[in-house]
Amino acid sequence: MRDTRTVLFRKARRQDLREILELLNDGKMGSVLERIEDPMPQLYIEAFDAIEADPNQLLLVGDIEGRIVASLQLTFIPGIAHQGAWRAQVETVRVARDLRGRRVGEAMMGHVIELARERGCALVQLTTNKARGDAQRFYRRLGFVASHEGMKLKLR
Amino acid sequence: MRDTRTVLFRKARRQDLREILELLNDGKMGSVLERIEDPMPQLYIEAFDAIEADPNQLLLVGDIEGRIVASLQLTFIPGIAHQGAWRAQVETVRVARDLRGRRVGEAMMGHVIELARERGCALVQLTTNKARGDAQRFYRRLGFVASHEGMKLKLR
Repeated sequence: MRDTRTVLFRKARRQDLREILELLNDGKMGSVLERIEDPMPQLYIEAFDAIEADPNQLLLVGDIEGRIVASLQLTFIPGIAHQGAWRAQVETVRVARDLRGRRVGEAMMGHVIELARERGCALVQLTTNKARGDAQRFYRRLGFVASHEGMKLKLR
Repeated sequence: MRDTRTVLFRKARRQDLREILELLNDGKMGSVLERIEDPMPQLYIEAFDAIEADPNQLLLVGDIEGRIVASLQLTFIPGIAHQGAWRAQVETVRVARDLRGRRVGEAMMGHVIELARERGCALVQLTTNKARGDAQRFYRRLGFVASHEGMKLKLR
């Protein structure tokens, strides 16, 4: 079994997009599939550039010897409430199927928590689909509390 | 009863901060109280400026003839997933106690949904404390689905 201490967590590069899309499509819960096409559809380039241009966004990947094995998006949100507290928000967490159960997710979330502390955030927050009981247990183990309902309104 | 159609929804100005803090302290659920002091504590000025400087953040207020009666923060989040979908995220929704039940919240959320559509967002999302059943019913009436757990990890 590969030692997951060798996972490098780093900012995604444009050339990682294809592998990120593959992670997104794997284990999808009945929603929109990503378009894995060559050349890369312009909408993903634009999305990547919007994230890249925003200092409060970070598209993070876990890299093992050049293979992208995990990804998530981190958003730093300034706020007035709680005495001007910043929040770190995690979206779209994925770990490659063949590497699940090897603490890659723990290592990635540990990295996120460290980044959130460095930025002075008071809170890390995320929502996780109620159908994914394993994900909830995973986040609880890390100290997250399911204190809130995560509510979504689809516009299209 | 005042006609709530007279509520003007607009971007917050720095001089609205004191009234926003009063809204935040009213109906607080046992967390950090805001410091309503004169002069305004620097930490709120900095938080306001961070929001103001970020084109993906909007601190929104409801104004009735110069009185701030409601507020929320809206964050536009770019993303790779769902074919490069943007999300609109709502935080820290408050309506003045004496104006509750008069559809100020509905009007404000209607405004938010309109802004989210204008920005091409695929989704509006928020988390609401599980202890606030009335808030959940309110969002359900607007079409939100409580499909997710809202998980929080406090860092301080």
